[in-house]
Amino acid sequence: MSFINIPKDCDFTLANIPFGIFSTSANPTRRPCTAIGTQILDLSSPFLSKALKADNAANICDALQSTTLNAFAALGKPARVAVRNAVLELVKTDSQWQGEVERTLVPMSDATMHLPMEIGDYTDFYAGLNHAFNIGTLFRGPANALQPNYTHLPVGYHGRASTVVVSGTPIRRPLGQTCPPTNSTPNFDACKRLDIELELACYISLPNEMGERVDIDDAGEHIFGYSLMNDWSARDVQAWEYVPLGPFNAKNFGTTVGAWIVTDEALGGFRTRGLDGRGTVLLPYLKEKDEGKGVFDVTLDVFVKPNGKEGFSKVFATNAKNLLFSFSQMVAHHTVTGCAMRTGDLLGSGTISGTDKTSVGSFLEANKNGKEEVDVGSGVGRMWLEDGDEVVLRGYAGDGDKRVGFGECAGVILPAKWGRLERVQGQAKQV
Amino acid sequence: MSFINIPKDCDFTLANIPFGIFSTSANPTRRPCTAIGTQILDLSSPFLSKALKADNAANICDALQSTTLNAFAALGKPARVAVRNAVLELVKTDSQWQGEVERTLVPMSDATMHLPMEIGDYTDFYAGLNHAFNIGTLFRGPANALQPNYTHLPVGYHGRASTVVVSGTPIRRPLGQTCPPTNSTPNFDACKRLDIELELACYISLPNEMGERVDIDDAGEHIFGYSLMNDWSARDVQAWEYVPLGPFNAKNFGTTVGAWIVTDEALGGFRTRGLDGRGTVLLPYLKEKDEGKGVFDVTLDVFVKPNGKEGFSKVFATNAKNLLFSFSQMVAHHTVTGCAMRTGDLLGSGTISGTDKTSVGSFLEANKNGKEEVDVGSGVGRMWLEDGDEVVLRGYAGDGDKRVGFGECAGVILPAKWGRLERVQGQAKQV
Repeated sequence: MSFINIPKDCDFTLANIPFGIFSTSANPTRRPCTAIGTQILDLSSPFLSKALKADNAANICDALQSTTLNAFAALGKPARVAVRNAVLELVKTDSQWQGEVERTLVPMSDATMHLPMEIGDYTDFYAGLNHAFNIGTLFRGPANALQPNYTHLPVGYHGRASTVVVSGTPIRRPLGQTCPPTNSTPNFDACKRLDIELELACYISLPNEMGERVDIDDAGEHIFGYSLMNDWSARDVQAWEYVPLGPFNAKNFGTTVGAWIVTDEALGGFRTRGLDGRGTVLLPYLKEKDEGKGVFDVTLDVFVKPNGKEGFSKVFATNAKNLLFSFSQMVAHHTVTGCAMRTGDLLGSGTISGTDKTSVGSFLEANKNGKEEVDVGSGVGRMWLEDGDEVVLRGYAGDGDKRVGFGECAGVILPAKWGRLERVQGQAKQV
Repeated sequence: MSFINIPKDCDFTLANIPFGIFSTSANPTRRPCTAIGTQILDLSSPFLSKALKADNAANICDALQSTTLNAFAALGKPARVAVRNAVLELVKTDSQWQGEVERTLVPMSDATMHLPMEIGDYTDFYAGLNHAFNIGTLFRGPANALQPNYTHLPVGYHGRASTVVVSGTPIRRPLGQTCPPTNSTPNFDACKRLDIELELACYISLPNEMGERVDIDDAGEHIFGYSLMNDWSARDVQAWEYVPLGPFNAKNFGTTVGAWIVTDEALGGFRTRGLDGRGTVLLPYLKEKDEGKGVFDVTLDVFVKPNGKEGFSKVFATNAKNLLFSFSQMVAHHTVTGCAMRTGDLLGSGTISGTDKTSVGSFLEANKNGKEEVDVGSGVGRMWLEDGDEVVLRGYAGDGDKRVGFGECAGVILPAKWGRLERVQGQAKQV
């Protein structure tokens, strides 16, 4: 129990203790923090050291004097656990530091949250088997929905780190080339099929050197924590550009991550079995010791507020256990070539979907590739996102005072910006 | 003319003045430099300011007190030109600073070169039309060799920045999944089809904000300079993994860049027309004002020293003008979505090939997908690279005292490292 009030159904109970980076108008320096109830606790405050029990306490406090969580994450699990325990000591009922802590608490409404880590490289996987099957079925039919490699390895691709932004950052509708099947030559226009991808992501803590693998048994030690992620996608751009090298401009205009990184210390109790690989026997480098505990039982919801309407409606609801591969398997596969990972690297799970129309993680699945409008509440149907639409992802495990939530992962769509390219009859000319 | 001796056929004439980052055993601090003849001139030396004519001379000198070229590159073309002119003043025959300059020159043989820029994101394009046609022909026949999008946009994919290394860094043979057509399930083994990709690359100078395009007419101002690049490739891994999201582990184990960045000030005189787009009318955002001057007439050679042999032999020879799209077009396309580019971002051209067997930029093309051994000199034939093989790329334009060269882009193949994965009958088990 804490002297800090924790409202009912709050993501940030004492079971959670997530990490983030915040600033305030009074102190615009970005600094590490955690969330308890609706309050933010500044982890760069000197009082942290009083409750911190670790041989390297001074190093940990130094690492927390930083504008990102990278230095802290690089200290690995022991430092993470030590800070977690210190926070729990500081805020417990009858804490000897209650007065000090209360004077430094900042209401969330007064804080600005920032990108929690400096991201060297961002990789997006495709481990949501139901999503891959749903998409594959739309384009190739159910018999050929999954490619031959799909159940043998976590399929993935390298993404764009420069446009990973924190929850709340507006996303501008991209311009691009598209080529509908009826066209002989491509159009240039603002994206007409703007979509979301509901994902869970992890950040890397301990790095590995180029030429060295991270063994699957060690992979968990290389993961700092988990976050919500929305991998915004321009489906019409993607359909034209993606052969033969995969998605490029369809994905590089923006990827939103939640402000909070939730650790394995908080989520560990919600580990469960992922999806079945349809009988595939995995190669040894992908075999986990604890095969039944690879993914997390986390409820994932997608809310939409259509442009001009008042309220958010829950549009999709699924669960993070709908993954074929765990993040440990992704790390082991990614590094099996000797690929170096650096502290702060971001790995997305791929879109997470269930098996029915409302349990999906993208409009593409729900609208059957542009054939059926999706009810987004407020009496509005949407095929794809329109300008001014707001999307919020939420995720949580457990309930009551054991609830562990991710906060929100939010973004609003801004209209396309044409600049010197003027829009003429669906084409564009230089003006 | 310079008081510094410039040997015949040297890459580093007074017409060049490339930029790099070096250190010495006497002074291990990484710092900016240029190359003249076989000498390295330290650009962090105080005497630079004496010859530097620019309103922001103090800023430029500050930017050159850095372990990468990013701060300098971010100052844009005027700073680059000012430093180039200052260097030419400093080293000219009868320079008033001759004594000072001579005391600080470092022979290249005494210098260690480092990665010249901190690379935020690395993108690899596929703009070598002959390469795309050669590869497409091998897998789909000549009629369907090029995908429908190919001549309309510079096809590209996001690469892995964490494993971009400077010339001379050894490359470890990757482990990975492969699945020959005769197999029903994949193997795990060291890559058996290790290849090179001969590319030219550019680095970004001026950044653009997320949500903002770089117009094609402005794209040149966003390019700092050009470098050789070898995008090492595991062809057997690639063949199995690449559907539907493109190359991933096949490319992320290492990408080698040359140590020297050659500027447009040096290469501008060698601008020429690229390959013809087979009648395609480009969309306006990709149309360059000076359409006949998009690429560079740069001779590109690939040398190989087979494991255990003494000398290097020239194995392939081609030219950088074998590109369908210019780097300005790549920048304009990459940012048309509003994708942010940061100073130091790296863009590869894609493999550059001619139209015959010895003018290619990869073994895959020369060996017809593993069917015909390639003569790599020293009486040795190679289908793919073996452990201990050394590869050196070279590139230059012009000749005599007008020669502008890139130095070399070199790497040697180290044997695969298995660690806890023991190799058993082409498979692997955890030990």
